[in-house]
Amino acid sequence: MATTTPRADFEKVFPSLVEDLLGEARKYKLPDNALQWFERSLNANTPGGKLNRGMSVPDTGSQLLERPLSPDEFKDLATLGWLTELLQAFFLVSDDIMDASITRRGEPCWYRQEGVGMIAINDAFMLESGIYLTLKKHFRSHPAYLDLIELFHEVTWQTELGQLCDLITAPEDHVDLNSFSMDKYTFIVIYKTAYYSFYLPVALALHYLRLATPQNLKQAHDILIPLGEYFQIQDDYLDAFGDPSVIGKIGTDIKDNKCGWLINQALQICTPEQRKVLDENYGQKDDAKEAKVKELYDELQLEKRYRAYEEKRVGEIRQLIAAVDESTGLKKGVFEVFLAKIYKRSK
Amino acid sequence: MATTTPRADFEKVFPSLVEDLLGEARKYKLPDNALQWFERSLNANTPGGKLNRGMSVPDTGSQLLERPLSPDEFKDLATLGWLTELLQAFFLVSDDIMDASITRRGEPCWYRQEGVGMIAINDAFMLESGIYLTLKKHFRSHPAYLDLIELFHEVTWQTELGQLCDLITAPEDHVDLNSFSMDKYTFIVIYKTAYYSFYLPVALALHYLRLATPQNLKQAHDILIPLGEYFQIQDDYLDAFGDPSVIGKIGTDIKDNKCGWLINQALQICTPEQRKVLDENYGQKDDAKEAKVKELYDELQLEKRYRAYEEKRVGEIRQLIAAVDESTGLKKGVFEVFLAKIYKRSK
Repeated sequence: MATTTPRADFEKVFPSLVEDLLGEARKYKLPDNALQWFERSLNANTPGGKLNRGMSVPDTGSQLLERPLSPDEFKDLATLGWLTELLQAFFLVSDDIMDASITRRGEPCWYRQEGVGMIAINDAFMLESGIYLTLKKHFRSHPAYLDLIELFHEVTWQTELGQLCDLITAPEDHVDLNSFSMDKYTFIVIYKTAYYSFYLPVALALHYLRLATPQNLKQAHDILIPLGEYFQIQDDYLDAFGDPSVIGKIGTDIKDNKCGWLINQALQICTPEQRKVLDENYGQKDDAKEAKVKELYDELQLEKRYRAYEEKRVGEIRQLIAAVDESTGLKKGVFEVFLAKIYKRSK
Repeated sequence: MATTTPRADFEKVFPSLVEDLLGEARKYKLPDNALQWFERSLNANTPGGKLNRGMSVPDTGSQLLERPLSPDEFKDLATLGWLTELLQAFFLVSDDIMDASITRRGEPCWYRQEGVGMIAINDAFMLESGIYLTLKKHFRSHPAYLDLIELFHEVTWQTELGQLCDLITAPEDHVDLNSFSMDKYTFIVIYKTAYYSFYLPVALALHYLRLATPQNLKQAHDILIPLGEYFQIQDDYLDAFGDPSVIGKIGTDIKDNKCGWLINQALQICTPEQRKVLDENYGQKDDAKEAKVKELYDELQLEKRYRAYEEKRVGEIRQLIAAVDESTGLKKGVFEVFLAKIYKRSK
């Protein structure tokens, strides 16, 4: 039977990754103060999140094998899992600068920590380099080594495209709802989030287990991208309608002029009068204006609209999962586990 | 006979690289505004420099073959040359943010251009991704494809290590000459500059021509790293003693608290009284204080010291070149061309 990874087991793998990467810096006789800096950056930026992306790599491996992983398989797949977390760390450190964010995971963002500042940009680069250094160290003799490298390159590129589109569509300092559209929204969500958060972990496990046939990758892609889209729409919904005490943060999408699902739905169905309310109140750091937008969201019954979307989309995803061809080694269980973690989540 | 690349021929290759990269974005249906943004970033940040790194790839190829390049060879080696320029663009766009620089190549730095700001960080990432997208498109069936990827990964990592050491050793806002040392200086110069500017172009040409035996790579490394070190020391010398009308910019190393060759030499030979002058005047945005440091540099005869260093170092490099074993395809001409471009340059 397949098993899921206890968080503590996954976390236990991280220190050896740090040790490997410090070794790659020591090899070049990096001075001590810089070595300590890099260690601090790795520890501050990589663990500490939900680790869902990372843990889903060994989880997927176990689902594909339909049995618990051997210790070596676990070590390898958990290592690949940590590489998805390094990729995420690279993105988050830099996104926080680009978005001028204040806190991350309850701490000041890395660039706002004592003495860091814009050095964080180079730290982000070094987190990214950690991916390829680790692949070379641990997987250089694996038959899929080149595929693993190319997969990370491709997903990094896709995420950068999503980030670019997001940044220039919804700049915080210039509100123009005409620049929003469901098409742009869908592009941003799929490229900025779905590829690296959903497709990447499964594709890594498939490559590692030598099950990454074009057909298996395509089947995984065609389920995981809609799943990732659904996940982000949920996130946008929870930002306005979730319980802050459960989510652990107060939503700021309206004030931050985010090109999110709710505003795009509102734009599609609002009357000219309602549109005027949105134009006058969206994307401004003002509690009263935010409240007006939320009032309008209620008037437009967006909560109900979200519920309907969720049921329809989950139904479609279930159909896609039911239709998976398992004859070449892909397993429905991979996707069922993902869906179960997401469906009707409240945080 | 070997030939050198006319700049115009090299520049002619760039537009097709841009077209390829835009194609890699169009493939994912990147919205038009984002596509135009990426095109603008590529054109603003990649050409426009001296292009020495880029052109040295086809130049090295021709030296290795001891004949002019065929049109296909030139296209391929010039493409690899442009990838060194993309790597440089990735570093410069981000360095300028980290250093809070004002201008680059006579224009406002990219992050200071209209509407760009911190989006420049993501633009830097996309320039880096351009390297691997181009390698995949043009060299995927080349026997050295994986070596080319790993070479870029390694040199990127080395440059990031140099940059980290530079950033934390000489922060602009905290002057402490105790943190400087010739050891740190040498580390910064070799890692931040020599690998990507000198070793990378030659290693690329060796891989492309399938001459990258471990021995040839090591011979190239052992000459090009000292050559790169010499180049940077020259740069530091010209910053204080060069003619601004010839170099095209006014040196700011003293004001910027740079851990450069001159200050490190001064620290080695100064008396306690002179050290006090340095402590009180180095690293401050003040013309009078800068003048005091320069006065002390004259007192310490650093110009003479530099001349002696240059003659000694060039003599050593010439000996290394003379000892090159050409029997496995490496050629002395490769290094002679590099040295001739650098020796006694005034800009």
